[in-house]
Amino acid sequence: MVTVKRYLENPLITPEEVKPYHDGFEVIGAFNAGVAQYEDEIMLLLRIAERPLSGDPLQVPSPYYNIQQKCVQVHFYDRRDPAFNFKDSRVIKRSDQPDSFCGLTSLSYFRLARSRDGHHFSIDDKPFIYPSNRYQTFGVEDSRITQIGDTYYIYFSAVSEVGIGVNMVSTKDFKTFQDHGLIFSPENKDVVIFPEKINGCYYALHRPSLKSVGTPDIWIAESDNLDYWGNHRHLLGVRKGRWDGGRIGSGAVPIKTQDGWLEIYHGMSADSRYCLGGLLLDLNDPSKILARSDKPILEPEAEYEKKGFFGEVVFTCGGIVQGQILKLYYGVSDRSMACAELDIDEILSELKNSVAKA
Amino acid sequence: MVTVKRYLENPLITPEEVKPYHDGFEVIGAFNAGVAQYEDEIMLLLRIAERPLSGDPLQVPSPYYNIQQKCVQVHFYDRRDPAFNFKDSRVIKRSDQPDSFCGLTSLSYFRLARSRDGHHFSIDDKPFIYPSNRYQTFGVEDSRITQIGDTYYIYFSAVSEVGIGVNMVSTKDFKTFQDHGLIFSPENKDVVIFPEKINGCYYALHRPSLKSVGTPDIWIAESDNLDYWGNHRHLLGVRKGRWDGGRIGSGAVPIKTQDGWLEIYHGMSADSRYCLGGLLLDLNDPSKILARSDKPILEPEAEYEKKGFFGEVVFTCGGIVQGQILKLYYGVSDRSMACAELDIDEILSELKNSVAKA
Repeated sequence: MVTVKRYLENPLITPEEVKPYHDGFEVIGAFNAGVAQYEDEIMLLLRIAERPLSGDPLQVPSPYYNIQQKCVQVHFYDRRDPAFNFKDSRVIKRSDQPDSFCGLTSLSYFRLARSRDGHHFSIDDKPFIYPSNRYQTFGVEDSRITQIGDTYYIYFSAVSEVGIGVNMVSTKDFKTFQDHGLIFSPENKDVVIFPEKINGCYYALHRPSLKSVGTPDIWIAESDNLDYWGNHRHLLGVRKGRWDGGRIGSGAVPIKTQDGWLEIYHGMSADSRYCLGGLLLDLNDPSKILARSDKPILEPEAEYEKKGFFGEVVFTCGGIVQGQILKLYYGVSDRSMACAELDIDEILSELKNSVAKA
Repeated sequence: MVTVKRYLENPLITPEEVKPYHDGFEVIGAFNAGVAQYEDEIMLLLRIAERPLSGDPLQVPSPYYNIQQKCVQVHFYDRRDPAFNFKDSRVIKRSDQPDSFCGLTSLSYFRLARSRDGHHFSIDDKPFIYPSNRYQTFGVEDSRITQIGDTYYIYFSAVSEVGIGVNMVSTKDFKTFQDHGLIFSPENKDVVIFPEKINGCYYALHRPSLKSVGTPDIWIAESDNLDYWGNHRHLLGVRKGRWDGGRIGSGAVPIKTQDGWLEIYHGMSADSRYCLGGLLLDLNDPSKILARSDKPILEPEAEYEKKGFFGEVVFTCGGIVQGQILKLYYGVSDRSMACAELDIDEILSELKNSVAKA
């Protein structure tokens, strides 16, 4: 059993304290932040979700970035139109296509939040990464940040009507960034890049979404330059009927420990509850699984984890390691940010225990 | 209008003339071959599909490669079981999941066929590429071959229960080959790699299959070593309501012409009819589209193109260029191989005409 020390200040950041960037919009989410240590500050690259202030309740607004006009526009769907399905608060689907969506109910982009103590954050007024090309017209979501030397590689889902790909940018100063384009072709999400070369190769975990055959599992890929990826191999599958039976994906950027690379991943159950578990990969060959959590390390228990825009969700994109303590930042209920401290040795013991019982 | 000179000997290769490799199986397809010029021979890397000889008509056999036992085994589905849907002759689907399949009705692998005149082929008795790992348990399909220097890069769909990825191998002698693993992560198909570097980069076209959002379109990617790929960009979309409205994918390895890179691609209509069209890409930047066929260059018209295992299909994986003549080899009706000669100048004129009218 891993002790989870949730911060008393949780949720640390809520949408209410974020000023909308768009006139006539409200902020409904400040969550699923990428995490980095930059100089003496902890940086959270918040996913800010904004939604048009609703007027007519029969009209469902779907905001998108218009590349030609370089501004956000809103498409309205008629809630009474039987061609569309509005059951999922996050997306608008065609009634005859239960797996796919045609629009989102909010537009996400990234803003930086900064903190010296890791508990209290000040949030930038302006976006750091904002939709700017045809792959981002439905927004950018769920960044992870890998620091290699003095460069921070930031990668995230780029969502548009042509698909969901994984875009990467890099920065040295969190002021400007260089675009590396889509490093994984659609449909893919939940990429984490290891923070150093292992036996001469960079490695990443990724989560393709498959149409014809296969389940939403974690794969591993190699690179020699971080831009181009190959040698894709299946790493970890969903476990039907369990907490990670519906879908899995990488969460935090992998953490190097004496026992192996520790990955905190998310698992969704068949009833759409998101929990966090641990995965231990071989230090010299991260395609080798040493251990996997039997049960979640962190699951939705606090009120802010159970209720929100999309409830019963804990979802991490990264943490800060200080000695044996992992300060795990995580999004809650597709709405706010929280943090909990976990003891890495305890996680490793629990993982070894999971193996023993497997 | 492009003149299509079908060979009088068409179909050039049929399943009847191929001896099964597996005892108790029949060959139902010898089609969708990768094409290469090797020494003084034209090589076709045939996709050979074998199916267990049927006994009980109520049992639908689904062959697969068992990696542990290193042999082909057969799973039987009960045709009366309402949990499954047997309408598509190629696959077995779960009734509640119309987009995905759980098994195939045949197992595909590759055999070489060789010819001096391009009309008459002798077919190897043994496979050249045969399922050998967990990504190929449902078979390997639809190879393309790019020659760079004295190396032939062969890449193809690797199909298994974990997904459909794109596997690459390389050979210098068509006797042994080296495995490069999956160069594109699932779900992806219909990759063609350009035969030379363009402005310092290798390029490939690929066709992701998307679950949540987007259509089955052609994308372009870059590489510096052919193994690792990135900078994925959307290139060409389906055209709703037209011959290429349901699905598109690259066909032949791109051909360098004075006017640009000529790609012969396939388009499927809403009613599952496959035709071939042309695409002209900028010589110095193949992400720039110069022209696209208004109407198909080649469509199912001959009896062997209209009737077969899956009828109304012409599908190319490559051709041989001799002067201004393109000898286009193509699979017909998921069953046999055919060839037609086309004049490249005529294709280019037709394409310029398409642009003018667009």
